[in-house]
Amino acid sequence: MRQYAYRAQIFHLLDDPQHDAEAFQYFKDGLLIVEDGHVKAVGSFRRLAKTLRASTKINHYKNHLIMPGFIDTHIHFPQVDIIGSYGRQLLDWLQDYTFPAELAFKDSKVCVETARFFVKELLRNGTTSALVFGTVHEGSADALFAEAQKKNMRLIAGKVLMDRGAPKGLLDGKDLGRAATKRLIKKWHGRGRLGYAITPRFAPTSTPEQLAMAGVLKAENPSVHVHTHMCENKDEIKYVGELFPDSTDYLDVYEKHGLVGDKTVLAHGVHMSASMCKRVSANGAAISLCPTSNMFIGSGLFNLSQLRRHKVRHALGTDIGGGTSFSMLMTMNAAYSVCQLRDLSLSSMDAFYMATLGGAKVLGMDKYVGNFELGKEADFVVMDLKATPLIARRLKIAKRLKALLFAIMILGDDRMIAETFVMGRSVYKK
Amino acid sequence: MRQYAYRAQIFHLLDDPQHDAEAFQYFKDGLLIVEDGHVKAVGSFRRLAKTLRASTKINHYKNHLIMPGFIDTHIHFPQVDIIGSYGRQLLDWLQDYTFPAELAFKDSKVCVETARFFVKELLRNGTTSALVFGTVHEGSADALFAEAQKKNMRLIAGKVLMDRGAPKGLLDGKDLGRAATKRLIKKWHGRGRLGYAITPRFAPTSTPEQLAMAGVLKAENPSVHVHTHMCENKDEIKYVGELFPDSTDYLDVYEKHGLVGDKTVLAHGVHMSASMCKRVSANGAAISLCPTSNMFIGSGLFNLSQLRRHKVRHALGTDIGGGTSFSMLMTMNAAYSVCQLRDLSLSSMDAFYMATLGGAKVLGMDKYVGNFELGKEADFVVMDLKATPLIARRLKIAKRLKALLFAIMILGDDRMIAETFVMGRSVYKK
Repeated sequence: MRQYAYRAQIFHLLDDPQHDAEAFQYFKDGLLIVEDGHVKAVGSFRRLAKTLRASTKINHYKNHLIMPGFIDTHIHFPQVDIIGSYGRQLLDWLQDYTFPAELAFKDSKVCVETARFFVKELLRNGTTSALVFGTVHEGSADALFAEAQKKNMRLIAGKVLMDRGAPKGLLDGKDLGRAATKRLIKKWHGRGRLGYAITPRFAPTSTPEQLAMAGVLKAENPSVHVHTHMCENKDEIKYVGELFPDSTDYLDVYEKHGLVGDKTVLAHGVHMSASMCKRVSANGAAISLCPTSNMFIGSGLFNLSQLRRHKVRHALGTDIGGGTSFSMLMTMNAAYSVCQLRDLSLSSMDAFYMATLGGAKVLGMDKYVGNFELGKEADFVVMDLKATPLIARRLKIAKRLKALLFAIMILGDDRMIAETFVMGRSVYKK
Repeated sequence: MRQYAYRAQIFHLLDDPQHDAEAFQYFKDGLLIVEDGHVKAVGSFRRLAKTLRASTKINHYKNHLIMPGFIDTHIHFPQVDIIGSYGRQLLDWLQDYTFPAELAFKDSKVCVETARFFVKELLRNGTTSALVFGTVHEGSADALFAEAQKKNMRLIAGKVLMDRGAPKGLLDGKDLGRAATKRLIKKWHGRGRLGYAITPRFAPTSTPEQLAMAGVLKAENPSVHVHTHMCENKDEIKYVGELFPDSTDYLDVYEKHGLVGDKTVLAHGVHMSASMCKRVSANGAAISLCPTSNMFIGSGLFNLSQLRRHKVRHALGTDIGGGTSFSMLMTMNAAYSVCQLRDLSLSSMDAFYMATLGGAKVLGMDKYVGNFELGKEADFVVMDLKATPLIARRLKIAKRLKALLFAIMILGDDRMIAETFVMGRSVYKK
């Protein structure tokens, strides 16, 4: 099989910097060798160049940094057209912007066209894997899976489950969304690199009956994910308390229905009690932190120290369209601000971990992606270290790796992504 | 004299939207006519085209929006190389990053080279006027003024005054910086479009003697500005209390020395008491709000409702290098987040006002710039409404002006600036 070689600066993480601060590799003049879409070797150019086959052409990117593709652990594809909508906090945001936008996905043409734009935009931002919300419509998930399959992306998605609290056109029918979900699991789960997530929007828009159905589906399909929201906004939390008076807290609503396990991703978790942190941790579930969204719709500042203290698994999400950028770099920048405002300095290593290997772990795909370990799937980005005059100037001065990475995450955006590769294939080029 | 005409969408504000929500003009197909660097007319293309001289060529920008150049009311030019430095809050930030960087400006070559980059970067971001900190070195202000003069910018700056609390190389000598400040005022204040600001860094780095000297200089030169910092960070405020035990609060330190009047700009004002707001308002001083900086170095969330309640004049600043972007669009985005986190929705009209006419008022230059009133100096930007695939898609859907402007300020950055004009002359083109 043919061999491909990419020469540039190369960086990737081998473990969580919170466990092992030295668990990363950085090659100032590095070489990444790819065969059959998988990592064949990574290391210094000097050491590896001589191992290349004579026929292998080296793609040399000067002033570029190669790193693993970004992983976005929470995003809504049908919300690309409401990004940057004005003046609402969560519950009103849903009623005034989200639901009207999602109604349009009844039309399969809208599903297909939006999925196409969405996948393109992910790749343009260097995001190679994501956990994605559709709408309630079966066609929305179908269209997204089809588009992701074309690019051969490792992507997990699901149709939303809702049976109350939204316009009629967005509610599941008598069977609570069971049949459509089952069809989608059968059609897409495990097909190529795709995976399914059972996706109740959040407690307020599902009856206990629908949540119970979702729990049964999860029990019947143990390898699928569960993807929902939790503890994003204070009014929401209060509302959940009113809707589920028998539950001890928000998390308990999901626990009661068998929806909290090691394949569960709960978006936000801005306002969590110690008890909730302990139980999320014990169940092996994960929190997707979405800082641009939390600031833009005024939900609050997540508490990373608390999550770390309780060893709660976590990573980053853009939460488009509550979030304001597809760029995981801008999301890392926002995460830094949230932490600074809570008196914690988020290191560049921690942030890049959350956006790559940490995200892969949260989505249960670290066996396949997240770094350049031998044999992993070659999902990676080539970052332009001279993307803007300011970036070029600033990065030139950043002598140490950590300072370089930090400046990248503070100043960088989609412009830094010069090229994106999925399974060794170039799928986006600036 | 020659006449120039620019056809595009055109938007500008005529007054503070808080006073008059309808005080703006928007021409979907507009024409801006410039003669001798000044606004000759603005209006609909249909109405104005026939008034043009036969010899006037029309510059037609399709899918572009022309608006007044942005005004940055607080920025440090010698800090371009420490943007995105890691892990400090204000007082440590100064010691660990700012002071070491500013020491280099002893060298006039560094001053000249940095000033050149800085001015270019302002214009690349569509910022046509600014209030700028230099370093303590006379040469820093000199270099910046010289560079701004080359571009004929309306810009106010000053050398920093410091005589304690910083490395020796950054402290004024025996005369407390008086002679250098006087020379700079004489050389640059009122020259072309330039103005001088007496610039004590902040209370902790000036002795009462230096502040008194600054007050005397201000009294001797009533038309110059005063530019300093106040109430940015809680530790800083506590420290000022310790250094000035005889002052009732931080503002009082400046008031005592005659430094608070209608030409005073106090950067930040994140943590202010009601009394301070009342006095700033009564004195006619202004606050420069710097949201990207306040979040990045964890200073806190400014309280816009309180400022409005007390009718405190205010506008926006990037506060490079504590701030993370030269773009006033990104600064408006961050201001929206700060307000959302305090349960206030900042409208696009209010944000664009703060970044244009409001900024001009804060800097006392609204007679000359800030909007397209007849006879004003023609400082303007041409914004590309298709700057990125996401912006192109999102703006196409924003049917109403306010939604369009809001999406621009949330999704926009330097890429949206297609061209920048100063006094009718193109000084930057993408």
